[in-house]
Amino acid sequence: MSENTQGTLSNRLTYGMVGGGIGSFIGPVHKAAIAIDNSADLVCGSFSRNKEKNQATGLDWQIESDRIYDDFEKMADAEAKRPDGIDFVVIVVPNNLHYKCSKVFLEKGINVVCDKPLAFTPEEGYDLMKLASEKGLEFMVTYTYTGYPMVNEAKRIIADGEIGDIRMVMAEYPQGWLADRAEDTDNKQAQWRVDPERAGLSCCVGDIGTHVENMVHYVTGLEIDRLSASLDTFVEGRKLDDNARINIEYKGGAKGIYWSSQIAISEENGLKFRIYGTNGALEWEQEKPNVLIYKRKDLPTQIYTRGNGYLSVNAQQLTRIPAGHPEGYFEAFGNLYKKYCRKLTAKKNNEALSENVTFTDVVDGTRGIKFVHDCVKSSNQDGAWVDGSFDYKKQ
Amino acid sequence: MSENTQGTLSNRLTYGMVGGGIGSFIGPVHKAAIAIDNSADLVCGSFSRNKEKNQATGLDWQIESDRIYDDFEKMADAEAKRPDGIDFVVIVVPNNLHYKCSKVFLEKGINVVCDKPLAFTPEEGYDLMKLASEKGLEFMVTYTYTGYPMVNEAKRIIADGEIGDIRMVMAEYPQGWLADRAEDTDNKQAQWRVDPERAGLSCCVGDIGTHVENMVHYVTGLEIDRLSASLDTFVEGRKLDDNARINIEYKGGAKGIYWSSQIAISEENGLKFRIYGTNGALEWEQEKPNVLIYKRKDLPTQIYTRGNGYLSVNAQQLTRIPAGHPEGYFEAFGNLYKKYCRKLTAKKNNEALSENVTFTDVVDGTRGIKFVHDCVKSSNQDGAWVDGSFDYKKQ
Amino acid sequence: MSENTQGTLSNRLTYGMVGGGIGSFIGPVHKAAIAIDNSADLVCGSFSRNKEKNQATGLDWQIESDRIYDDFEKMADAEAKRPDGIDFVVIVVPNNLHYKCSKVFLEKGINVVCDKPLAFTPEEGYDLMKLASEKGLEFMVTYTYTGYPMVNEAKRIIADGEIGDIRMVMAEYPQGWLADRAEDTDNKQAQWRVDPERAGLSCCVGDIGTHVENMVHYVTGLEIDRLSASLDTFVEGRKLDDNARINIEYKGGAKGIYWSSQIAISEENGLKFRIYGTNGALEWEQEKPNVLIYKRKDLPTQIYTRGNGYLSVNAQQLTRIPAGHPEGYFEAFGNLYKKYCRKLTAKKNNEALSENVTFTDVVDGTRGIKFVHDCVKSSNQDGAWVDGSFDYKKQ
Amino acid sequence: MSENTQGTLSNRLTYGMVGGGIGSFIGPVHKAAIAIDNSADLVCGSFSRNKEKNQATGLDWQIESDRIYDDFEKMADAEAKRPDGIDFVVIVVPNNLHYKCSKVFLEKGINVVCDKPLAFTPEEGYDLMKLASEKGLEFMVTYTYTGYPMVNEAKRIIADGEIGDIRMVMAEYPQGWLADRAEDTDNKQAQWRVDPERAGLSCCVGDIGTHVENMVHYVTGLEIDRLSASLDTFVEGRKLDDNARINIEYKGGAKGIYWSSQIAISEENGLKFRIYGTNGALEWEQEKPNVLIYKRKDLPTQIYTRGNGYLSVNAQQLTRIPAGHPEGYFEAFGNLYKKYCRKLTAKKNNEALSENVTFTDVVDGTRGIKFVHDCVKSSNQDGAWVDGSFDYKKQ
Repeated sequence: MSENTQGTLSNRLTYGMVGGGIGSFIGPVHKAAIAIDNSADLVCGSFSRNKEKNQATGLDWQIESDRIYDDFEKMADAEAKRPDGIDFVVIVVPNNLHYKCSKVFLEKGINVVCDKPLAFTPEEGYDLMKLASEKGLEFMVTYTYTGYPMVNEAKRIIADGEIGDIRMVMAEYPQGWLADRAEDTDNKQAQWRVDPERAGLSCCVGDIGTHVENMVHYVTGLEIDRLSASLDTFVEGRKLDDNARINIEYKGGAKGIYWSSQIAISEENGLKFRIYGTNGALEWEQEKPNVLIYKRKDLPTQIYTRGNGYLSVNAQQLTRIPAGHPEGYFEAFGNLYKKYCRKLTAKKNNEALSENVTFTDVVDGTRGIKFVHDCVKSSNQDGAWVDGSFDYKKQ
Repeated sequence: MSENTQGTLSNRLTYGMVGGGIGSFIGPVHKAAIAIDNSADLVCGSFSRNKEKNQATGLDWQIESDRIYDDFEKMADAEAKRPDGIDFVVIVVPNNLHYKCSKVFLEKGINVVCDKPLAFTPEEGYDLMKLASEKGLEFMVTYTYTGYPMVNEAKRIIADGEIGDIRMVMAEYPQGWLADRAEDTDNKQAQWRVDPERAGLSCCVGDIGTHVENMVHYVTGLEIDRLSASLDTFVEGRKLDDNARINIEYKGGAKGIYWSSQIAISEENGLKFRIYGTNGALEWEQEKPNVLIYKRKDLPTQIYTRGNGYLSVNAQQLTRIPAGHPEGYFEAFGNLYKKYCRKLTAKKNNEALSENVTFTDVVDGTRGIKFVHDCVKSSNQDGAWVDGSFDYKKQ
Repeated sequence: MSENTQGTLSNRLTYGMVGGGIGSFIGPVHKAAIAIDNSADLVCGSFSRNKEKNQATGLDWQIESDRIYDDFEKMADAEAKRPDGIDFVVIVVPNNLHYKCSKVFLEKGINVVCDKPLAFTPEEGYDLMKLASEKGLEFMVTYTYTGYPMVNEAKRIIADGEIGDIRMVMAEYPQGWLADRAEDTDNKQAQWRVDPERAGLSCCVGDIGTHVENMVHYVTGLEIDRLSASLDTFVEGRKLDDNARINIEYKGGAKGIYWSSQIAISEENGLKFRIYGTNGALEWEQEKPNVLIYKRKDLPTQIYTRGNGYLSVNAQQLTRIPAGHPEGYFEAFGNLYKKYCRKLTAKKNNEALSENVTFTDVVDGTRGIKFVHDCVKSSNQDGAWVDGSFDYKKQ
Repeated sequence: MSENTQGTLSNRLTYGMVGGGIGSFIGPVHKAAIAIDNSADLVCGSFSRNKEKNQATGLDWQIESDRIYDDFEKMADAEAKRPDGIDFVVIVVPNNLHYKCSKVFLEKGINVVCDKPLAFTPEEGYDLMKLASEKGLEFMVTYTYTGYPMVNEAKRIIADGEIGDIRMVMAEYPQGWLADRAEDTDNKQAQWRVDPERAGLSCCVGDIGTHVENMVHYVTGLEIDRLSASLDTFVEGRKLDDNARINIEYKGGAKGIYWSSQIAISEENGLKFRIYGTNGALEWEQEKPNVLIYKRKDLPTQIYTRGNGYLSVNAQQLTRIPAGHPEGYFEAFGNLYKKYCRKLTAKKNNEALSENVTFTDVVDGTRGIKFVHDCVKSSNQDGAWVDGSFDYKKQ
């Protein structure tokens, strides 16, 4: 059993939060995820535009009163000036404010963590990529599912060439919670997702299809060459898609099928990939995250499970408790911050990182937005093939 | 525990076989499948063009010498003339002879059972449909997987409207056995499948993609409206496809994705469907055939297993042994014959069948050929949508 | 894909059946199991004490009229005298006739296949052991579950020392079909099992606990040293046990727990073993018979599946169709006969068998009866440890 | 999706910790578990007997310097006197100090949370029971696995009588990490567990068998009447057991088998129960904690999964994130504190709790110690039945 070596004395990181006022869902999740590994301390915030709620949240979270800010512009400004200003900001505001808020903190020289989607247009994404690059800042976009240890083991296995050249990718993300008009109930999560004003061009692809795209890219490194997408709206009265069938061709010859759905009755959160190479195959499901299935040519299939000594060091570092003690969504989330904070600490201390610390960043966030736009474009042309490539130089 | 009531005395059915000589694979499988339920007796055959092998097979299977025929034309002729001639013929010759051989027996007024693919062109299929219809003969095409009891329970659940209107179908058939150049070894099964002369237009879609098409149609009754197919050849030097991505739109608004592959490393025989309706969903895998997963809206998922009293009479009749005693491929195959022979017996005795006896027939076989042709056509146009409808009137 | 090489011409085996008249359950199962591999031909029988039923069964199964016998004594006598007399007899009469009927055929020099339980007392078993040995006859007792290919692979892995010395065995056989008073319905299977006259000393241990004992012995070779058994009767009014908790200590230091139950609601036919050695562990379930789980020390668990090239030759010979095409109970049953007939053929031809052909025989059947008696003895003493050893010399 | 309503302003709870200094394993787990729901704030501690480590830990966790105590006696004394003294103390010291440390805090009137085992002898347990009762204090013993939502749903289903009267309990806890002499490596977790000085009378039963006992009692409410235990030591040189076979008879007629093992190669943390009643059965595995299998008489098995609306309010309150987003060990741990803190808050505010808030307490902890003693006693008498009842009045 490994011992927890978090919580060392020197140079603790601090952070602030924008959004996350009492009653919000995702703010406390970020806070809890950071707390699992004691990665950083929350010291300031602008938790709500509602003054009372803002104060109450700050008080409850034991924030000193002079670091509870009325708005995020003031917060960015003040924290940038303080000698003990925050190391990074966590942005958990509604999607339509992601771009604006991220930009404000980057401009003040503060590292940013922002939920996906990073922005609404690829151009906004390129803008943030450029800004972060110019300022030399670390910008994490929280594609939570990439934090699972076994996802990172899959990435390692593929990078080491163990399964050979990838031929076929089957990836999917079925959910069933929007199979009826949940938006007509008091379900706020449903309401904004089906609303073009707040969700942007797409509901299903934008909300979960983009996780499929990100996951496959994260694990395989494959770049899309072209794609053909058919976005469906099954529930009457909706303006956006609630199901999507996407045919993918990658640079280099691999092919793929992505399916995402919000009308797949009784499916919960079924993000899953199966990746077939010339020499082996990998299979992983978000709902059974502690397991990675490794299929080998002409040999018995192997079951890798979290926390074992036969896993790579990287996968072992992303876990806290012994094999057989399940870790889940919070712990995956915590791993994003574990990596991010390791990188920030190294930078702060002018130390080189001995290993490769990878997290989903502003480039991945921008790629994701372009993917959504490409899918919508193809679907609007009855599934015609469209260029799906993502050109880094635009940054 | 149910008792076996097969093997009643009166009016036993007899059959002959074309093909199936010693050393063949599928002939003995048919014979064993029929024997499980004692559905009919093998009494004649033309087992091989090789005279010695033909005789040896007949002798071994205790066929009377005057009913071991040199060729199937003679067999059809002689059996049609005998007062005790066979009730049906089982055709297990190479694919390129299916059409010709079936036609000969139909013309002589003998019921036919033929392996899939029924023929090489839709026109040949329509021809056989017409002939069988005119002669009033029963023509079964052995899509074996439709014989599983839980597949038939799924069909029943959908027909009864339990899962509501179907929205989305995810169906797949991954295999891995052609991930390398198996055709360069002494693997005859591989050799003919990758050979356009013997396999026809398609390897992967023709061999297994067509099972996906058939299974979905059998279970749901859905008719394809249009489809977009991308056929891939991953293994170098092959002339035919070894992987296929197919996007489906059905008449009535349902959508689907079909994936079939022969290069999916380590996959064995992974035929699987997931069917999502407005009120529930069904999931079934050929490799776990005794289980049907029934997902219900807002309720716990239910696991149906073969042999239980809560299943419909139809599903119960297609099983022989108590729940928990696994039945497999042979028994599914046996069920095809169980149904087919029940129908023949009823006809022979001029009895009405009290229940609906459904098996995959010459119409399904023809639909299957058209599906393969449609997929190849679409793929040749870079995945353009093509008309995928199947017009019964053509018969 | 392997080709079926059954059905060669020379020296076909023939067999007769005692019991199995129209309406019986297990007779047709034996016949179908033999037919799957075309292992032998049914040529005579005494199918029922009821003359009409006897004749009808014989006629239906195309038995020549002079080989349909009124009783098994006459059958044994007549077949022993015929130059073309049967190679073996299949005994599927009620349990209380197993001993008597087996003895008659052995005495006439005819090889015997008999369902379990072989007899009612260990002494009867020792008697049959002695007789078969003296006559040099092959006597198979059909512990069907030992016919599964993956069970035989487990046996091979252990025999090869791969998992090291066995320490702990967890084996169980839960069923739920007797959780209520099924014997009060028209369920004949329930009626005889709970009746001391027809079932003997025990219901649960005798019917299924004995399969646990046999399976563990077959796979591991372990001999019981002593045991402590607690037999429970949960359903009111029953005279025999419907649940059993058994604590086992083997010769050599290994330990085990056996649980069998007929009141485990909703369990179907859950025979399962987990065997833990010093270097690995094996896990197998009868309801998922095509899979063997192989757990290795400090390494990922491996999943072995039927029909693959990485399995031993023995396991490959016990299968007919490619990996991924499920085989089940009938095919396991067929494997018993495949082995048995291979041995008979070798003996008949005075050929040495190149490999070790193992099937459960009269010794295993006798060991099973002693096990049941030992369990009842211990339970009658409130679970006191009793000598559980089985002494071959007694034969 | 539910919203997180933790973090309300008024009356936050505070706690202190004894043990948990930098480098320790379980201290940070408690702290992270509490942080997930923001249930209470750590404000003081005596983290290590090592002064430097104690200070460093306190500093790192931002404890005010006057509340970092040299030893727990001083801490109990000081905190009891402070007007803003802690609401409860978390005791994570080595097992041999549990009793002593708990007693000190109880005597000062401070609520206690202590890891299991609560103490080394039943008498010590009775002593703490009495003290807590006299002082009116809440004493939680952290049997973590009872915190899983689906365990609590199982408890609810049984309490509501849905599965009828319980007949048979199969419960087990296999692990494989002590299959070799891990104690000869630098594995501290192994070292103390196999050491009678530090582990007490038993290794396997004391460490994990006791979780089996507690889990079954928690879920079913069954009280043991008598038990027969066989404790095994498979690894040479060990003084304590590393495997245990336990036969249980409960008051009221139910029976059970418990198996715990530390030598079950490759098993990770396999706590599992199967509970069979007269009308249904429940099955749950710690390694798949989000799933509860509900088997019903004559009906399809149902799969309950965490986070769904069809679960009871209680199970829903013990989860944070939507169905399909896995929660694991940390979240189960968090639930213990969620319940404990809800009870403390209610008491503090003199409010009645609207629902029944149940957590494993000093009574459960004492029952657990008695169970270990009973098992050792039986095993020392070669598995003789011993009285396994637990008499509350002794408190």
